[in-house]
Amino acid sequence: MRILVANANTSEAITETCAAAARAAAAPGTEILAATPRFGAAVISTRTENAIAAHALLELLAGHAGAVEAVVLAVSHDTALDAARQLMPCPVVGMTEAACLTALMLGGRFGLVTFGGTETYREQIARLGLATRLAALRGLPVTPPQALADPEGVGVLVLDAVEAMVAEGAEAVVLGGAGLAGFDRRLQDRTPVPLLDGIACAVRMAEMLVRAAIPKPRAGSHAPPRDRATLGLSPALARLLACGG
Amino acid sequence: MRILVANANTSEAITETCAAAARAAAAPGTEILAATPRFGAAVISTRTENAIAAHALLELLAGHAGAVEAVVLAVSHDTALDAARQLMPCPVVGMTEAACLTALMLGGRFGLVTFGGTETYREQIARLGLATRLAALRGLPVTPPQALADPEGVGVLVLDAVEAMVAEGAEAVVLGGAGLAGFDRRLQDRTPVPLLDGIACAVRMAEMLVRAAIPKPRAGSHAPPRDRATLGLSPALARLLACGG
Amino acid sequence: MRILVANANTSEAITETCAAAARAAAAPGTEILAATPRFGAAVISTRTENAIAAHALLELLAGHAGAVEAVVLAVSHDTALDAARQLMPCPVVGMTEAACLTALMLGGRFGLVTFGGTETYREQIARLGLATRLAALRGLPVTPPQALADPEGVGVLVLDAVEAMVAEGAEAVVLGGAGLAGFDRRLQDRTPVPLLDGIACAVRMAEMLVRAAIPKPRAGSHAPPRDRATLGLSPALARLLACGG
Amino acid sequence: MRILVANANTSEAITETCAAAARAAAAPGTEILAATPRFGAAVISTRTENAIAAHALLELLAGHAGAVEAVVLAVSHDTALDAARQLMPCPVVGMTEAACLTALMLGGRFGLVTFGGTETYREQIARLGLATRLAALRGLPVTPPQALADPEGVGVLVLDAVEAMVAEGAEAVVLGGAGLAGFDRRLQDRTPVPLLDGIACAVRMAEMLVRAAIPKPRAGSHAPPRDRATLGLSPALARLLACGG
Amino acid sequence: MRILVANANTSEAITETCAAAARAAAAPGTEILAATPRFGAAVISTRTENAIAAHALLELLAGHAGAVEAVVLAVSHDTALDAARQLMPCPVVGMTEAACLTALMLGGRFGLVTFGGTETYREQIARLGLATRLAALRGLPVTPPQALADPEGVGVLVLDAVEAMVAEGAEAVVLGGAGLAGFDRRLQDRTPVPLLDGIACAVRMAEMLVRAAIPKPRAGSHAPPRDRATLGLSPALARLLACGG
Amino acid sequence: MRILVANANTSEAITETCAAAARAAAAPGTEILAATPRFGAAVISTRTENAIAAHALLELLAGHAGAVEAVVLAVSHDTALDAARQLMPCPVVGMTEAACLTALMLGGRFGLVTFGGTETYREQIARLGLATRLAALRGLPVTPPQALADPEGVGVLVLDAVEAMVAEGAEAVVLGGAGLAGFDRRLQDRTPVPLLDGIACAVRMAEMLVRAAIPKPRAGSHAPPRDRATLGLSPALARLLACGG
Repeated sequence: MRILVANANTSEAITETCAAAARAAAAPGTEILAATPRFGAAVISTRTENAIAAHALLELLAGHAGAVEAVVLAVSHDTALDAARQLMPCPVVGMTEAACLTALMLGGRFGLVTFGGTETYREQIARLGLATRLAALRGLPVTPPQALADPEGVGVLVLDAVEAMVAEGAEAVVLGGAGLAGFDRRLQDRTPVPLLDGIACAVRMAEMLVRAAIPKPRAGSHAPPRDRATLGLSPALARLLACGG
Repeated sequence: MRILVANANTSEAITETCAAAARAAAAPGTEILAATPRFGAAVISTRTENAIAAHALLELLAGHAGAVEAVVLAVSHDTALDAARQLMPCPVVGMTEAACLTALMLGGRFGLVTFGGTETYREQIARLGLATRLAALRGLPVTPPQALADPEGVGVLVLDAVEAMVAEGAEAVVLGGAGLAGFDRRLQDRTPVPLLDGIACAVRMAEMLVRAAIPKPRAGSHAPPRDRATLGLSPALARLLACGG
Repeated sequence: MRILVANANTSEAITETCAAAARAAAAPGTEILAATPRFGAAVISTRTENAIAAHALLELLAGHAGAVEAVVLAVSHDTALDAARQLMPCPVVGMTEAACLTALMLGGRFGLVTFGGTETYREQIARLGLATRLAALRGLPVTPPQALADPEGVGVLVLDAVEAMVAEGAEAVVLGGAGLAGFDRRLQDRTPVPLLDGIACAVRMAEMLVRAAIPKPRAGSHAPPRDRATLGLSPALARLLACGG
Repeated sequence: MRILVANANTSEAITETCAAAARAAAAPGTEILAATPRFGAAVISTRTENAIAAHALLELLAGHAGAVEAVVLAVSHDTALDAARQLMPCPVVGMTEAACLTALMLGGRFGLVTFGGTETYREQIARLGLATRLAALRGLPVTPPQALADPEGVGVLVLDAVEAMVAEGAEAVVLGGAGLAGFDRRLQDRTPVPLLDGIACAVRMAEMLVRAAIPKPRAGSHAPPRDRATLGLSPALARLLACGG
Repeated sequence: MRILVANANTSEAITETCAAAARAAAAPGTEILAATPRFGAAVISTRTENAIAAHALLELLAGHAGAVEAVVLAVSHDTALDAARQLMPCPVVGMTEAACLTALMLGGRFGLVTFGGTETYREQIARLGLATRLAALRGLPVTPPQALADPEGVGVLVLDAVEAMVAEGAEAVVLGGAGLAGFDRRLQDRTPVPLLDGIACAVRMAEMLVRAAIPKPRAGSHAPPRDRATLGLSPALARLLACGG
Repeated sequence: MRILVANANTSEAITETCAAAARAAAAPGTEILAATPRFGAAVISTRTENAIAAHALLELLAGHAGAVEAVVLAVSHDTALDAARQLMPCPVVGMTEAACLTALMLGGRFGLVTFGGTETYREQIARLGLATRLAALRGLPVTPPQALADPEGVGVLVLDAVEAMVAEGAEAVVLGGAGLAGFDRRLQDRTPVPLLDGIACAVRMAEMLVRAAIPKPRAGSHAPPRDRATLGLSPALARLLACGG
């Protein structure tokens, strides 16, 4: 089974980190392909960059349509999730979505810890329809590079955030952001509730969906585009919009 | 991997139907054990019977604690889901829960079709925290035995219900009830949106969770019971409550 | 009027405490019967024990069907509330439900204080449909026996919790748990908002419903069971399920 | 026990109807006083009239402060409910509020049928925090006088509305409006779910609250007014605002 | 364009403050009329006073029907907003409503700071349907006269409240209460998010609506009253209710 | 005042239609600039096209940063609304957002009619936080070109949809989609509730916001991007992300 791990940042280093996390989580027999978009922010951290990344991601995915059996969006904002689902002829899973849904199956409410501001994560979880299962959000006052440079120091901050969220009712904690990849394994023994890594959860959900062989819808707002006239898009993207997946 | 498919009805026929559906969905290497509770309703169809079945199910599960790697609750009411999660030392997945979460990953809102009344399903989906992703509910004016006796006739009713729910915004439809097991494969080609069978979805989610090896929580409302004094319970259930999983 | 105060714990001491609280609240002419289930946890404090208690409670109630004019569930989790309502031919009231509804009629939002964790109370209030009227929840770091042993010390903790919840918008406070029975009278003079004891509220609501003589529904998800085939249940419970109330 | 049944319409006929319904529902020993406001609409049917009636009702209530032990607002809009609660030194219950809370204790979701438009009832039930327990609303295409003139004909319309709402999930139905007083007794035998009359429910809830002897809050948004400077109000109302209840 | 700025307090000083704030915000060509009601509280600070003020405000507005092109309700409780909308033949805007809607167009969630308790503001924002866009509420422990007497000292309190609400996710802050009029201009430079003054926002929204020339509805719960029989109302108010706007 | 009306479709014809509607609604002294993006769908009708359009729109806006005083997004999906708000140094208003907020100020709940499917509009209104004010959605079984070709025939369909939504509680109706521009004026006399055109509402809201001169936030999730490293973006867009607005 071939799963595309599609970064939405243009930083190759993040792509590699995500690919490694995906390979660590993948089942035997799953091949992980990783790809980086052609344009956009090195590291998405604003609404504007995220909106631009949606196009970059769709262009990237279109280039792999038919060549992979599932897509994992390796960006904690689940950028362009619904659009990618509509476009691609295979399952598409968002990393934060997958971690949140995994948390649901552990029972109770969950928390999410990430870098910086949390408002867009609150909106994202509300869009997923999961607001009543969200116990707490915490933003760490550090950046992803700092997490890479000082995993032990940042780990302590994560543990503090987890402890605070457990006190607010979180019974599992989603690690939001590729920069926290691997922190679940590093910190799990030191927390009383499960830590969920988005990439790992998404790879497992993608494998599950591939095996389920659920057909794509032919009606509704996720039915594949067809006969769409466009201007100035990449050939692969324009072709998918014109001829369907 | 050994997965217990635990029926909550005392009818062996339903257990066998569910076991067959589970085996059809399981990955190579997954062994499906099926079990039937010692007491309760032959076929649960009231709130009272469902409440009784929670105890029966927990007693049944306790007898398998340590001997299986995951549990699928083969009852569309997801009976005792949270209690079973707390009790058992392995992942526990509800069939309706699993189908609904699978629907979420297909995008948009979903519908659910079942036998008879729908109010308890509405409540169940609200308890899962998924009310805003629910587009419609439909109750068929037939019983599970009728579905077994006349699958083609009942299939037509299901197709009508699906069509009506698609018009109300459903982009995937959950088949609620073991009596509809297999109707996804039977009817999928005749519907424009994916049909999701609970047992199949739950087996796949259980396999995924086993592979994920997520630790059980040590804090919160799902931390395993310990040192609980009880009276009149089965030895296995009393022991789990006294000594933890 | 005969009202059954049905404990869901198997501890007789709790039954007696609840019976006393019920008698203190009952109107002249109301006879309080108290009963303890045959099996289950001495003191329910986990999801698992609560799920088991549902069966124990229904068995207990079935033995009184026709012999009492109302039932009060003397367990702060309102265990098996809907199932009991469906099963019994008389009104059934939950103690936390009754206290919350009483709080609504005082105006504004309310708080709830209990022993230990609060997540299951949050879920319970959401299931009642009252989440938007809930201002705050507080769990005391003590156990019911400690409350019995040191009512003044625990009373101070309750007062602190009430004060904190008033600051968060609570305009009445529900005392959750039989272990806090009587704390309303003990502490009311020292708090600026009403304290509501579940047993007392439930007895008064039950008396009110008996006087109202509202017929049981013949349709919907609370219509009495009839012609239900079961296995291994107590004779009284099996008979009610087979022949209706 | 003296309960004031306070109409918010200036029509004496409605006051008398409500008083009769209240007396029919009251316990032995309860004395029903009925009163009509000094100014406002004969029959409230617009938002404007209802807003005006709030003042009229508060003036009316102020004249009875200290002379009654509870107040029932005999207007289906629960006009000025929170304001009256704050002002008066005794319990205040709204008729629609009481019927809705009674419905909650019967289990499941409820419906409401009334004369004319239903949007303001939807808002009212949302303000009570009960939106998730509301299954359906129906407005009859007739006026209260028509209900008085042709109870059998209007009864048929009510039965049709009830049937439709049961199909939508209502397991009890609130009769909204004094014009439907008595229709519960008239129609109950012909419907499969309980019918709830607001006045009757409110009288019973008021009796219950009087017996409960719950103190008024001294903090929060319902604490009694004190030292309020006003202009142009009735002496009784001005005095209550200046000196508290 | 003539806009009526209608105070709901009977204090002329507040009317003048609001009129000044309105004139500062009005476009060239807009004439601001300010008016004070005939009866009611000098300064509304309880639910009771607010309910009374609804009538006073409607009487005040009725006297200006046809003579102004829009109405701004110069009271932070948006007293009688829907009733005034129904009654008047012109647009009616509430000051808190206008500030909240303006906040929505700046993006993200907003906070609100006011004097004293915040529960009624929470209810008001929920009634507007905006609860999910509300990040935080803060009540200052001072009174409007103190704000007038010590704007710099109270300004510091406002800045503290804004800072706390920004930390909770507020991306704009509504100043609730005429007593904070002008504090937006005084404090804006010292806060990282926009401050929104209700009177200013409402005047601008009213101007916008006048220019839009949207017709009044002829159906639904805001259709103008007509042929309504009343008793004891001001001639202008009675006439509007009888003959429509 | 210069307002940019930014189309998100690449069809110039739609841009011209929107520009005309904007000019018809603009105040004297407002200059309308209209612009069409460089790439993307001729007419957006899928999630994929809309996600791509976000980038196209941001590129288009970046080219006008500093040269206009406000932006109206002339696309009924309010494409990239939050991202544009963050990016641009001036107010940005979405046409559907503006129409919905205008509807709120008319009172009650509103409906929305558009071409084709309605699920994405339901999501959009939920994202705005306005779900509880939405009474109904209707999708017309025609395309925008059909509306241009046969305005009278499509007008009849719109009137039918409006009538149905009024029966479901809509007290104002938003016309969703540039293809319905002008239908408010064409049909208003034939409907009992206000019809709201998105472009017209958005232009008026934009003018209002320009006059309000509200500062951009310096904190939170809409604070302008700064020092963002990007790859492959248009020079103007890259510059804004690097140097802020």
